[in-house]
Amino acid sequence: MQISELGEFGLISHLTKGLQPQNASTVLGVGDDCAVLSYPDKHVLVTSDMLMEGIHFDLVYTPLQHLGYKAAQVNFSDIYAMNGTPRQLVVSIAVGSRLQVEHLDDFYAGLRLACERHGVDIVGGDTCSSLTGLAISLTCIGEAAPEDIVRRSGAQVNDLVCVSGNLGAAYMGLQLMEREKQVFESRPATDIEAAQPDFSGHEYLLERLLKPEARRDIVQRLREAGIRPTAMMDVSDGLSSELLHICQSSKCGCRIYEERIPLDYQTAVCAEEFNMNVTTCALNGGEDYELLFTVPLTAHEKVSAIEDVRVIGAITKPETGAILVTRDGNEFPLRAQGFKAF
Amino acid sequence: MQISELGEFGLISHLTKGLQPQNASTVLGVGDDCAVLSYPDKHVLVTSDMLMEGIHFDLVYTPLQHLGYKAAQVNFSDIYAMNGTPRQLVVSIAVGSRLQVEHLDDFYAGLRLACERHGVDIVGGDTCSSLTGLAISLTCIGEAAPEDIVRRSGAQVNDLVCVSGNLGAAYMGLQLMEREKQVFESRPATDIEAAQPDFSGHEYLLERLLKPEARRDIVQRLREAGIRPTAMMDVSDGLSSELLHICQSSKCGCRIYEERIPLDYQTAVCAEEFNMNVTTCALNGGEDYELLFTVPLTAHEKVSAIEDVRVIGAITKPETGAILVTRDGNEFPLRAQGFKAF
Repeated sequence: MQISELGEFGLISHLTKGLQPQNASTVLGVGDDCAVLSYPDKHVLVTSDMLMEGIHFDLVYTPLQHLGYKAAQVNFSDIYAMNGTPRQLVVSIAVGSRLQVEHLDDFYAGLRLACERHGVDIVGGDTCSSLTGLAISLTCIGEAAPEDIVRRSGAQVNDLVCVSGNLGAAYMGLQLMEREKQVFESRPATDIEAAQPDFSGHEYLLERLLKPEARRDIVQRLREAGIRPTAMMDVSDGLSSELLHICQSSKCGCRIYEERIPLDYQTAVCAEEFNMNVTTCALNGGEDYELLFTVPLTAHEKVSAIEDVRVIGAITKPETGAILVTRDGNEFPLRAQGFKAF
Repeated sequence: MQISELGEFGLISHLTKGLQPQNASTVLGVGDDCAVLSYPDKHVLVTSDMLMEGIHFDLVYTPLQHLGYKAAQVNFSDIYAMNGTPRQLVVSIAVGSRLQVEHLDDFYAGLRLACERHGVDIVGGDTCSSLTGLAISLTCIGEAAPEDIVRRSGAQVNDLVCVSGNLGAAYMGLQLMEREKQVFESRPATDIEAAQPDFSGHEYLLERLLKPEARRDIVQRLREAGIRPTAMMDVSDGLSSELLHICQSSKCGCRIYEERIPLDYQTAVCAEEFNMNVTTCALNGGEDYELLFTVPLTAHEKVSAIEDVRVIGAITKPETGAILVTRDGNEFPLRAQGFKAF
């Protein structure tokens, strides 16, 4: 169905049909000039992300359902990175004429699934057309008790630097997708068989790229363990870039150890296949949406016991800078070489 | 200066330099994963708008400073339309390679001016590149006491229908701009003189298009007069479309009178010049950013005394529909023919 058959208001009501607010803080959702929220006892967290076709995603290999799921998760991840809980999502989307109502249904199905899993209400947004590609802008609103909020600026000398999950997998997933896209585009038009991409053995890497999961579980485990991180952020641009942000905001340095950086087996195998240095992929790859945080040295035992968290180094005085200690004992300053927005 | 010389983080810190939060509700602004806000005693209002180059604006005749100013005002207008006060703005912008840092400085100068005038803090956002045109997504956060919030759904039979300012001027401004753009594009390349647009006598119409002002003053005057509207929204798509929204949400009809629709003299003159029906322009033009609201019949005297507010009709039972009574006494059902997003 063409979007123009429904019109703007018909489309909005079609896409948001059956949405039932789940959170007490959602007073009024879609359908008026504004959404109305209530946060009498908590601080309100607000984050926003814009995703542009051709820059942040390629519709050739990104199913719209996955795109919706990921767009939502990326925003939730920013709320968790403040040690908060996401509650509401505002969805703005500009759509080129290639896309039909069914495409937007897929996108919303992904959004809705992510929101369901994280207990988030879609409360409003804007829907319009685009002369060119698809543009998506999401704003997520969350909550945290004032004393729970963790900024980037609280890291102290001797704090431990920790990271959840593993790094570099999404980046290797992207390399695989780009390779298969080139194969696809250079195939003879008659050769349907050759157009089927072969990703066997790499499923985990693709899932990390296309369907990341914001780490609510890590925030919960830290709380259960009685640990409040001193600084925290999520790894979207790459570990190096994020470490430098924490060092800059907290006015400190850090030493992290190459051998401690968590890697998945598939990431290592795939990096070798592409003749890439796997540490470089983990440091600069980005889009991991893992949590990077610092905890006091006294929490060492507790934090080491948390599943899927790894201590990778420590915070140092600012004058020592941000340093990577390699497997062979050499030291290199970390540099931000992650995702370039421009 | 090329944006790539600064990079994403350099650009953000350049654009947001010197921003000082003015509102007690702004706990933390730009620079972390999220902004942090505090609204212990008020409801939180959230609205979002997306503006796409070629759809919502044409950089040929829209100076970037005006675009920033207008983009902010459009969002403030949605907060006022709930009888609230805007407090924070989140700015996401995707930029094509044609634009340089100085262009974004202009855009931000407009944003900042609008924010200053309305006491709003810029607290965050996202900045990235676009393969094609400029895309802007703003989210505005505001506040209102729970008992002050005015929805679209509260209009009652016999309520008076009121509108602020005058209607159709921005639409006529757009017609003028489109005409001058065609003149400009069809001129001989050597003929510089002919390329100078002539807008004399039409300055007000252009200002209404390029530099609208959200009607905080009307919200304040209503409050001072002790009037709480029963329903309210802002006129962005056109009077007809907005009246139909109020009728649908409030489950009522309305009768409005052509002779009561407020018009500026320049709008009428320009409509004649373009051989257009001025009432049609006022009903369907859009982008007026005036407030449309209903008040109880008992407030007739008080509301009539408010400067720049006009009573244009009354709310009726749903079965009579939404009706325009023309100057010659004929009746026509109102139809939504405003801005088409698709």
